Amino acid sequence: MSLELLILGSNSAAFAHRRHHTAQLFKLQDQHFLIDCGEGTQLLMKRHQVKLSRIDHIFISHLHGDHYFGLIGLLSTMHLFGRKKELLLVGPPGLSEIIQLQLRYSETSLNFHIRFIEFKPGQSEVVMDHPKFTVTTVPMDHRVPCSGYLFREKPKKRRIDRKMMEDVKLSHLDISRLKDGQDILNEDGSVKYENKLLTSDPNPSFSYAFFSDTKLRPELKSMIEGVDMLYHEATFANDMKDRAEQTYHTTAEQAAQFAKDANVGKLILGHFSARYKELDPIINEARAIFPNAELAIEGTKFIVDGK
Amino acid sequence: MSLELLILGSNSAAFAHRRHHTAQLFKLQDQHFLIDCGEGTQLLMKRHQVKLSRIDHIFISHLHGDHYFGLIGLLSTMHLFGRKKELLLVGPPGLSEIIQLQLRYSETSLNFHIRFIEFKPGQSEVVMDHPKFTVTTVPMDHRVPCSGYLFREKPKKRRIDRKMMEDVKLSHLDISRLKDGQDILNEDGSVKYENKLLTSDPNPSFSYAFFSDTKLRPELKSMIEGVDMLYHEATFANDMKDRAEQTYHTTAEQAAQFAKDANVGKLILGHFSARYKELDPIINEARAIFPNAELAIEGTKFIVDGK
Repeated sequence: MSLELLILGSNSAAFAHRRHHTAQLFKLQDQHFLIDCGEGTQLLMKRHQVKLSRIDHIFISHLHGDHYFGLIGLLSTMHLFGRKKELLLVGPPGLSEIIQLQLRYSETSLNFHIRFIEFKPGQSEVVMDHPKFTVTTVPMDHRVPCSGYLFREKPKKRRIDRKMMEDVKLSHLDISRLKDGQDILNEDGSVKYENKLLTSDPNPSFSYAFFSDTKLRPELKSMIEGVDMLYHEATFANDMKDRAEQTYHTTAEQAAQFAKDANVGKLILGHFSARYKELDPIINEARAIFPNAELAIEGTKFIVDGK
Repeated sequence: MSLELLILGSNSAAFAHRRHHTAQLFKLQDQHFLIDCGEGTQLLMKRHQVKLSRIDHIFISHLHGDHYFGLIGLLSTMHLFGRKKELLLVGPPGLSEIIQLQLRYSETSLNFHIRFIEFKPGQSEVVMDHPKFTVTTVPMDHRVPCSGYLFREKPKKRRIDRKMMEDVKLSHLDISRLKDGQDILNEDGSVKYENKLLTSDPNPSFSYAFFSDTKLRPELKSMIEGVDMLYHEATFANDMKDRAEQTYHTTAEQAAQFAKDANVGKLILGHFSARYKELDPIINEARAIFPNAELAIEGTKFIVDGK
């Protein structure tokens, strides 16, 4: 199994230089998440051949338009295309009210149920507890209530060594015990097969953290320590540090230092200010501190598979 | 002076076949109007090199998403670009509430004033009375409150014949009288110069009617009798007449017959169903009845200048 992240858009505030507003498609296990949904996201999904029907979970970070103005249109199109499956929609307080108001005035009763979860601003909480992973909110420091999201696979079971198993006959229950790390015992309680003889270590559990929009929050380091992939906003380069501070944003240098301190695997930078036609200042500044940094260029797919 | 209409989008409901949702830029005298504003309109304006700052009036027909989901994004971008000028926003009841709610949650106080006018559904009323033209609502028959708009230049003044004027000396007041159609009198009240000797007929007064979305409304014929240009929705061809009836839409044949009966100059058909990849069935059907019919293809500019 692996993580896959497809960037649909990653510009801040204004559309510029053919860059669109924040939206990304994240795949974990067999689940597809849309994270943020700027205006035109459904058009970008079409361009990048993403099927609307795949998406069962939408996570919105905050109620600045460049992060959610495409949502009502996307929901309407899902309805029009006959969606019946429930959709999970996680976002800040007010999102549900905005959506419901627009549906009311268009006299639309959706064919599908939306399960709204409004996150609690300023707190970290598990908003999705799937058998194989959790999604936790990560409180951002922005001008309006804003949350990042941490996706973390649960520890996986030990892998059965098929070759070693050829010579032993075991029940389903025994195999289940092996996967859980237990030894196989004789009736008298003595060890018949040591677990480590028949199994190998589990596949790694992957994790991804999405941080947008926020001032640098060094205190979140421990929360995301060692994640495989971190998307962090880097609206400005460091010469605009004061402006970043005033507008509750982060510089590329700050994001890179944070990624380094938190020992993450890969850093993806996004939410670029329209002032940067070329993004070299952003990526160069980041790589000087944290070499495994990439730009969230539209249409790019980032894959983490432990290989 | 002339009328200019630039089509930005004209597809119904779903984005399809590279066609976008309804939005059009209409120019009358020196005033620019945006009529409807589907999702992505600001991107289409960029593509067609329309400056946001030109637009001082936005008219929305109704609260189905394909006609207004791009509005909040457009307003936000105007704000971001530092707009200070007042904006007139005419639309159905509820539009103001939706916009205000979204601005409230993003904690945005716009740099410019929006003058909201909510039209009265089911009635016709003058919503804009400019010295040189009026804009009147035209009640549509749709599933939610919906209005078309009729733009009509006021009668123009008589044109002074510069050649004939070479031999006569007249005051500003006299010239103003001539433009208003009066003769120039001697002090004793007798006619000094007959008006028709020094002036010619005024330039024509142009008119444009926008009809979307609606069932056919033959009873509106007298209201738009003789307009120079009529945009009429033609969601379906006539083989889908029943479907048009059920969904409160019009067929191309119906729209063409209406244009013929109302003796309009030019008919522009739009709001195409996604079922039509090629629009030949729509335009062929219409031209069989009303030859001066055109399709509202994105990027097309229609000009009426009386030549």
